[in-house]
Amino acid sequence: MARCITLTTDFGDGGPFVGVMKAVIEAHAPGAQIRDLTHRITPCQPGEAGFWLARCWHYFATGSIHVAVVDPGVGTGRAILAGEHGGHVFLAPDNGILPLIVPAATQLHTLSQAWLARQGWGTPSRTFHGRDIFAPLAAAMLTGRAAPRDLGPVCTSPVPAAIPAPVTNQGRITGRIVAIDSWGNLITNIEASMLAGLQELRVTAGHRDLPLTDTYGAAAPRTLLALINSFDVLEIAWREGNAAAMLNLGHGAPVTVTGKPATA
Amino acid sequence: MARCITLTTDFGDGGPFVGVMKAVIEAHAPGAQIRDLTHRITPCQPGEAGFWLARCWHYFATGSIHVAVVDPGVGTGRAILAGEHGGHVFLAPDNGILPLIVPAATQLHTLSQAWLARQGWGTPSRTFHGRDIFAPLAAAMLTGRAAPRDLGPVCTSPVPAAIPAPVTNQGRITGRIVAIDSWGNLITNIEASMLAGLQELRVTAGHRDLPLTDTYGAAAPRTLLALINSFDVLEIAWREGNAAAMLNLGHGAPVTVTGKPATA
Amino acid sequence: MARCITLTTDFGDGGPFVGVMKAVIEAHAPGAQIRDLTHRITPCQPGEAGFWLARCWHYFATGSIHVAVVDPGVGTGRAILAGEHGGHVFLAPDNGILPLIVPAATQLHTLSQAWLARQGWGTPSRTFHGRDIFAPLAAAMLTGRAAPRDLGPVCTSPVPAAIPAPVTNQGRITGRIVAIDSWGNLITNIEASMLAGLQELRVTAGHRDLPLTDTYGAAAPRTLLALINSFDVLEIAWREGNAAAMLNLGHGAPVTVTGKPATA
Repeated sequence: MARCITLTTDFGDGGPFVGVMKAVIEAHAPGAQIRDLTHRITPCQPGEAGFWLARCWHYFATGSIHVAVVDPGVGTGRAILAGEHGGHVFLAPDNGILPLIVPAATQLHTLSQAWLARQGWGTPSRTFHGRDIFAPLAAAMLTGRAAPRDLGPVCTSPVPAAIPAPVTNQGRITGRIVAIDSWGNLITNIEASMLAGLQELRVTAGHRDLPLTDTYGAAAPRTLLALINSFDVLEIAWREGNAAAMLNLGHGAPVTVTGKPATA
Repeated sequence: MARCITLTTDFGDGGPFVGVMKAVIEAHAPGAQIRDLTHRITPCQPGEAGFWLARCWHYFATGSIHVAVVDPGVGTGRAILAGEHGGHVFLAPDNGILPLIVPAATQLHTLSQAWLARQGWGTPSRTFHGRDIFAPLAAAMLTGRAAPRDLGPVCTSPVPAAIPAPVTNQGRITGRIVAIDSWGNLITNIEASMLAGLQELRVTAGHRDLPLTDTYGAAAPRTLLALINSFDVLEIAWREGNAAAMLNLGHGAPVTVTGKPATA
Repeated sequence: MARCITLTTDFGDGGPFVGVMKAVIEAHAPGAQIRDLTHRITPCQPGEAGFWLARCWHYFATGSIHVAVVDPGVGTGRAILAGEHGGHVFLAPDNGILPLIVPAATQLHTLSQAWLARQGWGTPSRTFHGRDIFAPLAAAMLTGRAAPRDLGPVCTSPVPAAIPAPVTNQGRITGRIVAIDSWGNLITNIEASMLAGLQELRVTAGHRDLPLTDTYGAAAPRTLLALINSFDVLEIAWREGNAAAMLNLGHGAPVTVTGKPATA
């Protein structure tokens, strides 16, 4: 399996943004393998990008470069950060994406204007750093011409994680909806491991109690259910329907799980 | 033209599902050519996946592996089937997809738990067999490490075709809408060949009579029309507009064609 | 960077249209590099295809073949045109796409039925020339088996540009919305260069005056703004929201900029 550059953006497909960003990568790294994680991150939700990339980067080859561009602050003074973790490299604006992916102890480097100016990439636009900075930068990293430590100083206080971690209090875990998939399933940041040691679990979202099942098919048709999904987090679904539309819940809505300590 | 793995799913682009499934294929078959047929099958409509794949597989190189994952029963007892037809291999859940693609006489093999357990792929999740079973299985088939007959016993009674065949009765053919494309065109399962030998054809859908034309441009702007499309089936369109929205018709809605026997 | 075939269409992702078109290209040009510019051109808006391709083709390698298929006239008598410009080749229906991309002096050749008949590609369908003509034709051009001048006579009067150029009158520039991206930003055909030499600029769209800023982030949250975007044209955005929905403006809507001549 070859090292690659993965892309996670909110560019959608309405325009040439992804295609042009890839063309610039290829111009700077001929033959580069470029892989799409998703381009349908909800606009201006950096947390969703961090959530998915945190759960997916390890499926790619060691040495891959993972680029997340959800960047409402593009062109302002916001920094660009780069860091290494687990033998992979991560690049994103400093808006709370990377702290969702790498451990707090990971050194994140801030891209300096001085380093950028030395590359001869031309003056970046103020609105499309995906094409003008992230693309050539990822290409330089894939081809070994740059590493995070080369780019500039260590960032001592990156913008904190764009999604707060779930809160656990006496058998009550409160998390949030962090992503909605194409079927309308509501995906939370409540990890399966947080439920370990609890029994008689109750899941509540949008003032409804939801049964906790193993599969979508285990619920009656057209009923709501909760399950631990294939990325090991709690998900709310409506069997063969769209839970997001049914519950009218979106990003950031709270979801709670309550349980009693399991007796040994 | 190289052998490849094609993907036909209802994953959409709202999340990393397609990207991760491809990463797993590449991990098991480095350098594999992976091609998207579509990831916008209507959720929980296996018939639409079978309809399109039946009309498209022959555009790909002999020896290709075609994977269809529209799988509301994932994680339940539903089987996974594999079969060979025309020098190509097809993989799908046992929910009526494959009988739309391969002839009834084609032997379909059921993936056995025993074979799966011997592969060392880890325990599959209960909700994402595209990643955990179909991806490594397609990779094994592309690289010659597995063939349908290896996987398990012949399936003697697969779930029947998810879309019933059109009914012909005394010059009246009743089919169904089986797919809706990005323009809102309504695509039926009435084959051009079913209309052979009939004249004075009348097409009816949603209580409307539609003129049968050769091209979209042959109808007046903003009028409804029917034509035999590029996949040799009857299609209903609204010239330069969205027929699905205009007629408020969806999957499974009946469409009829009536005609008189052509005189020699 | 390798020569490639780029695709710009209104096929969307609802069906196998893009996948099958690519498969036919690969069958005629094994190993061809195929790149998506976008498949989300607004249906039946050839001008949007021409607008984007004009601003993007130079990001690809010299010698690339750029195919634009937004083709409501498919199967009628409309011609197919091909031309060379800047070391690249462009292919599109004769419906106003190419005049937006190549200078007026560029020779455009009309694909002749005689040339087509000699290729042995079979009888094209009447509704999917992307697959049946554009795909094998682009493959033939990428592999050096055909050039625009081979296809047929020079087209002396192509259909004019599908989008009229902006009108400038005494410091008042009136352009149009020509594209809407996935965030809902409204993109006009008013070039940055048209504003040179003007000061005290005022931007008006949908009866609203909009502040002209440098970045999205420079406006207050949830306010409208205008800026020169990364493709050097005027764009209207709603900070962290959807301007198209907010203003209820679509393709062709007028946008004006007024200013006073800058004093030296």
